[in-house]
Amino acid sequence: MQSMSSAPNGLSPYPIVQAPMAGGASCPVLAAAVCEAGGLGFLAGGYKTADGMYQEIKQVRALTRRRFGVNLFMPQTGYVDPAAVEAYRGQLAGEASWYEVSLAEEDIIGTSDDGYDAKLAILLEDPVPVVSFTFGCPTFAALAALRKVGTYTVVTVTSVEEARGAQHAGADAVCVQGAEAGGHQATHRDDPQIDGTATVGLLALVAQVREAVALPIIAAGGVMRGAQIAALLAAGAESAQLGTAFLACPESGADPVHKKALTDPLFVRTELTRAFSGRPARGLVNRFVREHGPYAPAAYPQVHHLTSGLRKAAAAAGDAQGMALWAGQGHRLARPLPAGELVEVLAAELAEAQSTLKAMQMRSAS
Amino acid sequence: MQSMSSAPNGLSPYPIVQAPMAGGASCPVLAAAVCEAGGLGFLAGGYKTADGMYQEIKQVRALTRRRFGVNLFMPQTGYVDPAAVEAYRGQLAGEASWYEVSLAEEDIIGTSDDGYDAKLAILLEDPVPVVSFTFGCPTFAALAALRKVGTYTVVTVTSVEEARGAQHAGADAVCVQGAEAGGHQATHRDDPQIDGTATVGLLALVAQVREAVALPIIAAGGVMRGAQIAALLAAGAESAQLGTAFLACPESGADPVHKKALTDPLFVRTELTRAFSGRPARGLVNRFVREHGPYAPAAYPQVHHLTSGLRKAAAAAGDAQGMALWAGQGHRLARPLPAGELVEVLAAELAEAQSTLKAMQMRSAS
Repeated sequence: MQSMSSAPNGLSPYPIVQAPMAGGASCPVLAAAVCEAGGLGFLAGGYKTADGMYQEIKQVRALTRRRFGVNLFMPQTGYVDPAAVEAYRGQLAGEASWYEVSLAEEDIIGTSDDGYDAKLAILLEDPVPVVSFTFGCPTFAALAALRKVGTYTVVTVTSVEEARGAQHAGADAVCVQGAEAGGHQATHRDDPQIDGTATVGLLALVAQVREAVALPIIAAGGVMRGAQIAALLAAGAESAQLGTAFLACPESGADPVHKKALTDPLFVRTELTRAFSGRPARGLVNRFVREHGPYAPAAYPQVHHLTSGLRKAAAAAGDAQGMALWAGQGHRLARPLPAGELVEVLAAELAEAQSTLKAMQMRSAS
Repeated sequence: MQSMSSAPNGLSPYPIVQAPMAGGASCPVLAAAVCEAGGLGFLAGGYKTADGMYQEIKQVRALTRRRFGVNLFMPQTGYVDPAAVEAYRGQLAGEASWYEVSLAEEDIIGTSDDGYDAKLAILLEDPVPVVSFTFGCPTFAALAALRKVGTYTVVTVTSVEEARGAQHAGADAVCVQGAEAGGHQATHRDDPQIDGTATVGLLALVAQVREAVALPIIAAGGVMRGAQIAALLAAGAESAQLGTAFLACPESGADPVHKKALTDPLFVRTELTRAFSGRPARGLVNRFVREHGPYAPAAYPQVHHLTSGLRKAAAAAGDAQGMALWAGQGHRLARPLPAGELVEVLAAELAEAQSTLKAMQMRSAS
């Protein structure tokens, strides 16, 4: 791939973007390895303190001089019913007993802003090249302030309406997330009446967003091969963002049990579930999802904090059936290559698919 | 597009395939118009008598000399609980009263073979160029018999496992149907435990099937624009199959209320529902889906016959809220162009997307 040294602020030199995977997978070593190979690496600001995020930014800067991105979770403003969280605590009592942990007892209502203001202040004080947002759209003022310090802003969207909102707010680009994507759906307003049924497949969504807004598109969801990246560029995207593909890399901070589960024939399908966090997120269907998914309330991030101890205990026990095994619908194609090598393989596959398409076109023109 | 007169049996000269839409939309006039414009038109054998299917084949032959296809529904062999069908009859009592129709009273258990054997006999006696299958995979013997009479066979699949089964049975190609597709999911075995949650987005599914089987792929689900066809060819498909896009054409036999609803801002999303047929099918979310979807049993095609009178009465009353408004996730991009013109526009968009990709590639190589 071409050198990034003279890269402009836009996305066009970065067809391959590494998805910010909150919860440990997107560590500085992974992001830096992706950047060094010519992709756009990302840090996850979510679930960290503002200072924790800042330390990781400094670590990436020590590892690479190339451009990278930081993702922030937007504060959650919807009403969460404390009684629904307490009822789910009761549902999980057997798990707590089995894994011998106590479920978070502190007041977990009111922990829904993820330190957004403090993180934004750091990113304005000591800017990074790219900042993306999940679970909502920042204000016009916040996006303008980031642009003023030279940061390229990306808002993650899951529908045409959210893409229009992002354009209206002044985002530089949208990350279009299809139903295939692993981890949380980035839906701006979580609506339990619709739940996961309103999610749209990536290729259908890119076609609609392409015609609805003028912004560059990063396409995300189920992308594991360079031919899929070629497909998304043909559909009108500037870049493709890959999460599960990088999750399997040795540099990713995901638990080894999680990495192994991606291609374990024991796990044949994924599902959108509120079981672990209270918001629809796609993961491999395991015992925990089957038993508790149907009872999990729309209560994010309260349920995330509630299940934190359980998830840690299951991971410590090496028990894949009790962990949150986030995975996109392409998980069976995961390759445990070093991140830099994966970027190179993807770039070669992308070039090959584009050549094939070109040859097809020449043949049909003759 | 190039002439079809010397077209081989394969799919490569047909990047644009019209989906067989059972229930009236895929009439001979639509199929013939698609063929004449250089696409591959399809008739729907499902929900018809064998003779009804044969009459339509003769009508297409009178309208075009070009190659076309016929789709068959596979017989349903799963157990259906008569009590569940009766309970749903009770659920629909208010609808029957409102629309002043009586719900089908005859023995609707045991109508699940759709006249498959008789239809297959006709297609072996008087062959057509292409035959595709939905809701299952034919036997090795049936596929071999069709091949012997010169027919190209296609099995519709919704997973890697189904694609492997189709290859094993001797199909010439697979039609890979993504979660985005309108109408019925073609899942080989309907499993109410999994319901619609096991559906996979098209681009993720094509990438996986591409590596699992050696057969040519027709990719279906949410495709409305030529750039999406270019995308699917880049991902490794030979052709793209479009249903909802052709549903809106004046030649399609769909009800005008249905056609209008596709782009009506009243209908903002689609859902997989058993409400109308007893098998998960994607349609615009209207009153009938919201009210009855949660109570509809896994009982196909019994529920299809049960709701037949209601659907006709709602259509006769011009009441979109009581009709089965089948639609893929791209429905808002529907264009009410004549079918031949739509094929030409799609081909032009496809060529443009391929040229753009070629230009991008040359730029990145420089």
